[in-house]
Amino acid sequence: MTTLHLAVDRSAGIPIHRQIYEGLRRAILDGRLRPGQQVPSTRALAAELEVSRLPVLTAYEQLLHECYLDGRAGSGTFVSAALPDDLLRSPVPPSARSASSTPPRVRDYGGLGPFRTSLPALDQFPRAQWARLVARHARALTHAEMMYGDPAGVVSLRIAIAEHLRAARAVRCEVEQVLVVSGSQSALRLAAAVLLAPGDRVAMEEPGYPGARAALRAGGAEVVPVPVDEQGLRVASLRRRGRRVRAVYVTPSHQYPLGMSMTAARRLALLDWAFRQEAWVLEDDYDSEYRYVSRPLGALQGMDAHERVIYIGTFSKVLFPAMRVGYLVVPPSLWQRFVDARAAIDLFSPTLYQLALAEFLREGHFARHLRRMRGVYLKRRAALLSGLARHCGDRLTVYNADAGLHVAVMLSPGLDDTAVVQRMAKRGLTAAALSTCYAEPLRRSGLLLGFGGSTERRLLEATRTLGEILRA
Amino acid sequence: MTTLHLAVDRSAGIPIHRQIYEGLRRAILDGRLRPGQQVPSTRALAAELEVSRLPVLTAYEQLLHECYLDGRAGSGTFVSAALPDDLLRSPVPPSARSASSTPPRVRDYGGLGPFRTSLPALDQFPRAQWARLVARHARALTHAEMMYGDPAGVVSLRIAIAEHLRAARAVRCEVEQVLVVSGSQSALRLAAAVLLAPGDRVAMEEPGYPGARAALRAGGAEVVPVPVDEQGLRVASLRRRGRRVRAVYVTPSHQYPLGMSMTAARRLALLDWAFRQEAWVLEDDYDSEYRYVSRPLGALQGMDAHERVIYIGTFSKVLFPAMRVGYLVVPPSLWQRFVDARAAIDLFSPTLYQLALAEFLREGHFARHLRRMRGVYLKRRAALLSGLARHCGDRLTVYNADAGLHVAVMLSPGLDDTAVVQRMAKRGLTAAALSTCYAEPLRRSGLLLGFGGSTERRLLEATRTLGEILRA
Repeated sequence: MTTLHLAVDRSAGIPIHRQIYEGLRRAILDGRLRPGQQVPSTRALAAELEVSRLPVLTAYEQLLHECYLDGRAGSGTFVSAALPDDLLRSPVPPSARSASSTPPRVRDYGGLGPFRTSLPALDQFPRAQWARLVARHARALTHAEMMYGDPAGVVSLRIAIAEHLRAARAVRCEVEQVLVVSGSQSALRLAAAVLLAPGDRVAMEEPGYPGARAALRAGGAEVVPVPVDEQGLRVASLRRRGRRVRAVYVTPSHQYPLGMSMTAARRLALLDWAFRQEAWVLEDDYDSEYRYVSRPLGALQGMDAHERVIYIGTFSKVLFPAMRVGYLVVPPSLWQRFVDARAAIDLFSPTLYQLALAEFLREGHFARHLRRMRGVYLKRRAALLSGLARHCGDRLTVYNADAGLHVAVMLSPGLDDTAVVQRMAKRGLTAAALSTCYAEPLRRSGLLLGFGGSTERRLLEATRTLGEILRA
Repeated sequence: MTTLHLAVDRSAGIPIHRQIYEGLRRAILDGRLRPGQQVPSTRALAAELEVSRLPVLTAYEQLLHECYLDGRAGSGTFVSAALPDDLLRSPVPPSARSASSTPPRVRDYGGLGPFRTSLPALDQFPRAQWARLVARHARALTHAEMMYGDPAGVVSLRIAIAEHLRAARAVRCEVEQVLVVSGSQSALRLAAAVLLAPGDRVAMEEPGYPGARAALRAGGAEVVPVPVDEQGLRVASLRRRGRRVRAVYVTPSHQYPLGMSMTAARRLALLDWAFRQEAWVLEDDYDSEYRYVSRPLGALQGMDAHERVIYIGTFSKVLFPAMRVGYLVVPPSLWQRFVDARAAIDLFSPTLYQLALAEFLREGHFARHLRRMRGVYLKRRAALLSGLARHCGDRLTVYNADAGLHVAVMLSPGLDDTAVVQRMAKRGLTAAALSTCYAEPLRRSGLLLGFGGSTERRLLEATRTLGEILRA
């Protein structure tokens, strides 16, 4: 049996029969035991391994059960000849073999370096409090809470979201309009599925959020770029280009990527256009909670008298992205279609996080966290701006830093933003290139510099590095 | 100001300017302040409320900013005349106001009564162990684990799933083929998004799983029903009807709803058809873990030499549905398209549950739970079958009870299954009607009786009630 490398380890904390089962199965999968080959009798193997016969019998029984082994009455036990040949050419990959000893966790997807956009201050998140809520709800899950849930979301969370949106964002909503989804990306995808047929035209800010463009296109829609200026989406352009447009995607509170907020006049004009055109407005309010130079503006949705706005929000930017909780506020006329489409896509969101989050909001932790974060982000933003002024002022201009978790800067003529971003990546800095936010050839060269996820010191250091890169 | 019900509460923990802002905004929204109506001067209101003028100014500024108020130089401040009328007819609903006192939790969505299908034994789930893992991971979340994650899923979970599938289901897979999604419904939806264009034809078992039909149709595909018999999908019918069919949906381990498993001959014929046709096979292995009369069959995927099979599995039936974790095993040729489509739909699944689940599998809790559940379900199934024989034998015939968490029965001639299900619902029994699983007019009248989620005693009582209903 030495060829099988079979051995039991009594101190491993793994049942002996399981170790024997695993050892034999691996030997079969690795091809060290071949189809048709006889394996030792249970008695012989027990003697060789110096264990009792029971665990060996248990292991064999399982292997017989799973068709790895074949028992022939009176003539012993054999590796099953019926094993598909290909199974034998598919050994357990090395990565999987080492799994039990050193379990890999989550890799740093997209990078956590300074300037990463859409990265909140994870170091400031009240993790202990949150973990306590999660643990309490995990222990207390009722059978109903373990079962299939409402596609619209857990009611207590929907109530808490509606309260928050009415108070903080001047959104006009009843709890019956709030639909919980797994983030703003899935909210957009859902809206596209409900509102757009393949070939439909949908207008979008130019430059605009690439993730939104992808979500809208995924459903087969044709995306029509409409330029923005300092006042937000140019509604006059929309009127010209917007024939047969079914919907328009906007970020009125904090335009992505450039950062300005849409003026009241433009908002009214947009709503008027939507009403006349019978088009839908997709309002992505992705990080409106943070505004530094004037007070937060109410949502476009709250100004709409004709229920043409689908409002989209997320907890990814104010709590953390891996929670995967976002929401829509949907006009009553569209409600049932949204719920049905949501159920067809993935039924409902995991219940535990929804319960914990509802309590997090209800108990005031959320409001407190928001308030505290405003102070943290003000300081980080100030550090970034002063670092940029000191180290990069001759190579870039700050375009907008009024709100959110990133600053938009324009690069001096001759500097190509994608090349700069590549050079930054080599030095551990993860910024986004402004030009990638454009759909049309006419692009401005700039950077989106996130400041949410880095300390003031790291941001200052990073601006020094950026200055070196820009002058190189 | 008494008509405005405006008052400040210094002990509320809410900034005074915010309280004034809210009070005025609500007064406007509720119609107590009308468009064009003059509001008190900031000085007068400050005096009336016995606060300093600063918070009043702040509140007014915000309301002006948000266009609730209009300031006219030299003549005071007025409720904006431009406010849309409809805004005024949308008061805060009572349900939201009472939210903080009595938080509703999750309602019993779809019912937990005896005979509910797709309901595992929640009472047997090792909840304490699970909650311990969840709590531990919630406390230990790294920043990377709170950030955006891999659309394919957490690596440690994918490794654990690949190990499990190779060992228990003879699936041929590398970890690089395993994609974590939020359940079999989202897996199907994703497969449809990747493989099917609107107007494409997709074949499906008749009768078949209505949720799958909805997911396939949601992408605009035309669903072609192909009958099943005692050996599973009739591949000869598929050959006849299957021209221009891009994909076929099957449940080979445990046909939903009827319960038989597809014979080896049929499986080979189906794979051969798919290879020649260059069609894809969607194998939904939704509850293959439990088989009572013979050994579990390996997956169809493991027999396929030509990588035409997309394998779909879920933890909903073996752990609990509200966890929302399912998975696909995708041929390498399709991998990147699946990952991209997954990212476009909802980026990735919540990380915490994935981490906890990976450890649950790695530590052997999952395998132990499966083994223990086999015994539990054997007993519950036996109770159901003996109850049916005793109380309902003259009105129905057991069609199949070999596997899974439900038994398929055929009703005696003259008994309409949807009417029976309605009468059952009135007595607290939540079964599914077989006829609802058909797409074509020719339907058999029967019931799907879940036994996973009820104790033996409740199942026995329920069969007695069912007998009364059938004889009524």
